[in-house]
Amino acid sequence: MLLCDIGNTTYHFLDENGDYKKSVDSFDPASIKESIYYICVEPSIKQTLKKLQNWIDLSEKIDIDKYYETMGIDRIVACEAVKEGVIVDVGSAITVDVKRDGEFQGGFIYPGSRAMNLTYKNISSALDYEFNYELDTSKLPKNSVDAISYGYLKLLYSEVTSYNLQIILTGGDAHLFKKLFTDAQINETLIFEGMKKLIQTTA
Amino acid sequence: MLLCDIGNTTYHFLDENGDYKKSVDSFDPASIKESIYYICVEPSIKQTLKKLQNWIDLSEKIDIDKYYETMGIDRIVACEAVKEGVIVDVGSAITVDVKRDGEFQGGFIYPGSRAMNLTYKNISSALDYEFNYELDTSKLPKNSVDAISYGYLKLLYSEVTSYNLQIILTGGDAHLFKKLFTDAQINETLIFEGMKKLIQTTA
Repeated sequence: MLLCDIGNTTYHFLDENGDYKKSVDSFDPASIKESIYYICVEPSIKQTLKKLQNWIDLSEKIDIDKYYETMGIDRIVACEAVKEGVIVDVGSAITVDVKRDGEFQGGFIYPGSRAMNLTYKNISSALDYEFNYELDTSKLPKNSVDAISYGYLKLLYSEVTSYNLQIILTGGDAHLFKKLFTDAQINETLIFEGMKKLIQTTA
Repeated sequence: MLLCDIGNTTYHFLDENGDYKKSVDSFDPASIKESIYYICVEPSIKQTLKKLQNWIDLSEKIDIDKYYETMGIDRIVACEAVKEGVIVDVGSAITVDVKRDGEFQGGFIYPGSRAMNLTYKNISSALDYEFNYELDTSKLPKNSVDAISYGYLKLLYSEVTSYNLQIILTGGDAHLFKKLFTDAQINETLIFEGMKKLIQTTA
């Protein structure tokens, strides 16, 4: 079975040998001849794929009533993989979604580290620091690096840990944020697990 | 007594008749002949003012050991005005500083609403929403506007209210954030109160 998670910059594939990525700029989806299940956040690519019969859009198998209309398909599919826990997907944005007893409780969106770094820098060159992921979250800062790190990271930490649920980190910056969420599990193939569950339950 | 708080864009004056502002682009500080106490966050303006004998820099009267070296003078002077409480100064950045029993406990820096709005928008046009300041902070969102509003505002709300201290809102967006911090006091002249205290205690 071939699976593909399509983001703004890459086609991320999973086959029986493992996962690999192709750039959206150079990859031709028509080069694949076998059946392939996909999700895609990019509308223009979605249009192209609709014309290819072997590309099967898994978003059509979602029961949207369990989520909400404008929720990203990648968030939904990650939620499908988890029965109970907090899913923290750290990429260009950070999405935080909560599942309890199989039910989606809601979620929120926070800026990713690159975006937030730029935000502080654009407010003032005096705030142009790298974040300290090993920040002591238990006390209020008395230096500039920690003052912005606390603003960005401790506020997220408090919210995410407040649910008292297993934290599951996924996305490109998962290993970076593991320094902050020391008790979290890292699961880099959560999206594919969600896709497989969708295929099984709707087969 | 004439007081002046100089930011990146304005000279903010207080005299016996009230407060008024002048643009840094057009105002000539040499036009003032009487004694004037000031604080200034802009290094180039500070250089100019050093040459004018009647402009008295209040930053020299600060005991920096109570704060930290790179802390903004505007934050420090606002802290001088308050014995106990959380000072939330909402402008291009949001600074949050905690005083307990007269002692500075530390503080952090968070992006202001305009900067954060732009951050979400730059991550994705799908996140280009105005924040909902009347957000229900008690439950996880199930729509896009609240998903970003919760990320930005609820995380700040939880942190600021966690100290169980009086919240004092100051800065240009104080009235906007009063919708979120409904129990907060608004004090638009906190900086001037801090300046007056400094003048009295060091006179």
